[in-house]
Amino acid sequence: MRPLSRAAILAVGSELLTPFRTDTNSLHITAQLNRLGVDVMFKSVVGDDRDELLHAVRAALDRVDLLVCCGGLGPTDDDVTRDVVAKALGRDVREDLGMTERIRARYVARGFAMPMPEINRRQAMVPTGARVIENRYGSAPGLWLEEGDRVVLLLPGPPGELGPMLAAVVDSLLMERVSGTAIVRRSIKMTGRIESRTEEQLRPLYTEWSSAAVPVSATILAALGQIELHLSARGPAAAASEAALSAAVRQVVAVLGGDVFSTEGHELERVLGDLLVARALRIAVAESCTGGLIASRLTDVPGSSRYLERGVVAYSNEAKTELLGVNADIIAEHGAVSEPVALAMANGIRSRARVDVGVGVTGIAGPDGGTPEKPVGTVVVAAATADWSRSRVFHFAGDRAQVKFQASQAALDMVRRMLS
Amino acid sequence: MRPLSRAAILAVGSELLTPFRTDTNSLHITAQLNRLGVDVMFKSVVGDDRDELLHAVRAALDRVDLLVCCGGLGPTDDDVTRDVVAKALGRDVREDLGMTERIRARYVARGFAMPMPEINRRQAMVPTGARVIENRYGSAPGLWLEEGDRVVLLLPGPPGELGPMLAAVVDSLLMERVSGTAIVRRSIKMTGRIESRTEEQLRPLYTEWSSAAVPVSATILAALGQIELHLSARGPAAAASEAALSAAVRQVVAVLGGDVFSTEGHELERVLGDLLVARALRIAVAESCTGGLIASRLTDVPGSSRYLERGVVAYSNEAKTELLGVNADIIAEHGAVSEPVALAMANGIRSRARVDVGVGVTGIAGPDGGTPEKPVGTVVVAAATADWSRSRVFHFAGDRAQVKFQASQAALDMVRRMLS
Repeated sequence: MRPLSRAAILAVGSELLTPFRTDTNSLHITAQLNRLGVDVMFKSVVGDDRDELLHAVRAALDRVDLLVCCGGLGPTDDDVTRDVVAKALGRDVREDLGMTERIRARYVARGFAMPMPEINRRQAMVPTGARVIENRYGSAPGLWLEEGDRVVLLLPGPPGELGPMLAAVVDSLLMERVSGTAIVRRSIKMTGRIESRTEEQLRPLYTEWSSAAVPVSATILAALGQIELHLSARGPAAAASEAALSAAVRQVVAVLGGDVFSTEGHELERVLGDLLVARALRIAVAESCTGGLIASRLTDVPGSSRYLERGVVAYSNEAKTELLGVNADIIAEHGAVSEPVALAMANGIRSRARVDVGVGVTGIAGPDGGTPEKPVGTVVVAAATADWSRSRVFHFAGDRAQVKFQASQAALDMVRRMLS
Repeated sequence: MRPLSRAAILAVGSELLTPFRTDTNSLHITAQLNRLGVDVMFKSVVGDDRDELLHAVRAALDRVDLLVCCGGLGPTDDDVTRDVVAKALGRDVREDLGMTERIRARYVARGFAMPMPEINRRQAMVPTGARVIENRYGSAPGLWLEEGDRVVLLLPGPPGELGPMLAAVVDSLLMERVSGTAIVRRSIKMTGRIESRTEEQLRPLYTEWSSAAVPVSATILAALGQIELHLSARGPAAAASEAALSAAVRQVVAVLGGDVFSTEGHELERVLGDLLVARALRIAVAESCTGGLIASRLTDVPGSSRYLERGVVAYSNEAKTELLGVNADIIAEHGAVSEPVALAMANGIRSRARVDVGVGVTGIAGPDGGTPEKPVGTVVVAAATADWSRSRVFHFAGDRAQVKFQASQAALDMVRRMLS
């Protein structure tokens, strides 16, 4: 059989067509398929609507050799994926009595007070010729259907059920049906750069990579407070792809230098945490306009209690004085948003917490509070150690949340560069 | 002409087919179209690939009467949307010299050191019969194309350009082409409930609504730390839809009571902020396992400096004692994760910050640090005023970030219920 190489992902669920929800399962599915050398050509979202779904399934099967559907496998009338896919492939659907018993047994085993509702028998309906994939974390089994050279894979929508089931399929049924080529991807993250200038500097590499034995392709994306460079290499096997990708990553780092903070797609807070652990340093943060975001980002990283001693959100001037020892005269003279105050915050928390590194951030996140001299988006970041301190004034664009995030990014990055 | 009623959204960009990025423009577009009574039947993502895009455009035009494409209008070879849509509609593409001059003038006006690169002339290419839509925030103009009763609308990908342009189109070209019916939606948010029990309680309302003159439909969604109920009403005009929706919302609140924290889709931090402002109360938070997340969520709300006096992230026992006055003996006797410590944190920050409400949270966010008695996910939340205090032990499931979020949600909700 021809190896699978072109995939489409179809997310099923009317809630995914409202302004409130977006499909994220496809990101995980894409990562898994890419590792097997399968490209995702397009993805679609359709509601719980038999007619629309039937059209979407047929249109996809005209274009790709692997169609992954997620969602719509539950027991209610809204769950139409099983039936519609069977119809698109011209298959009958029959109850698998063994599976009904397994779903029933699952109800008993989980200690539910009531027996399995009869409605759940719908989940034991199986199209002719389909292979059933066990769901260890829910009642809806997955389905694998082959039609000539093409495959349709049905997965349940909840990520906690979809993830383990897909992992099992990737290691068994899918593995046998792919070509052996492998696409590997890496996300390189950097700060303190302009996208267009970065693109210009990297263009010679793009040219070189495109004609290499294992070609590497690149996409550059400006995100809030950082730039991401996504590289992908497609080689005859995972090892060859990885080797080409690693060489490309080294070239990028050589060109861009210290602005690159991760070649593994890691968040800045994790990179900084690793640096603090490696140097056995402890840190404390004093925040005004970031309002706890820096501490929260630092504590998103498992094990951060090893290096984060404390954080203080000093919104009021009194709190700055009481909790950080910032001299009220400095605030009166320079204003709360000033380099002397940010430095006093960084030094104050450093000495009070008795840690190696102190961080101070003060600014105007908006939408109110700006002045002609210090407009909304003005943020002062400071960092201090026993024998080193630095402060810098930034002017960020965007709404309150965007200013907060960019300010937290600038603060984490200042410490990262200091320790690198 | 037949009014537009069925839409599809097509996001164009190869980065949206990687594991790293998802399309979010479609949420905003959906909200705008729904307001005009236009349903989104499906949405798709395709890469910067002429062949795939051509198929996607043709397939969509077979199914809907309004196709909104976003992205792929830039000046580079990757930007194929203009050309492909013109081809799908059988139109020629010609340079609009007036537009070239406007793009050139924009370069000059923005004070760029260099003249407009010739590559940008591509953005002045217009399909025959298309109406050009001005882009006030970027160089790529939008396009409006009619083909019989159907419309294709091309918008730029950056949200800061797309949003204002879509708003302008909604108020002019689109407004003239819709039926006058209006779909209005509302998201009701609640805490402290189980999804299945909620669904059961609401089922009689669903039945009543489905046969009403202006039918209201409902979707219930369990999210982290909260449940959302999405209601939508489609009536002959916005006023009728709004009236039916408001009546439905009142019925829901009557059934679910105080667990509902917003009938306007607002976040819990905003709801709590409004309560604090209405009562002229000030708050301070003492966080351990949430690591600043509660303070950061509170300060996401504009104007939060009016009520948040300070926050303290007391990760270490020393910080709990020094910054909050938590007696070291209490920690030694009950452990840092205990109701006496959480209460001491809440009372400590309340008295030190001289505010009306103090919050204390301590727990084990994981992945490490759990014990048989206090496994990962154990979180104690406390809140205190001058004459009232409360504490409660929670056991949350999920990873570190999920535990942090649920703990922050429980803390904000405890204060909300206290003030409601």
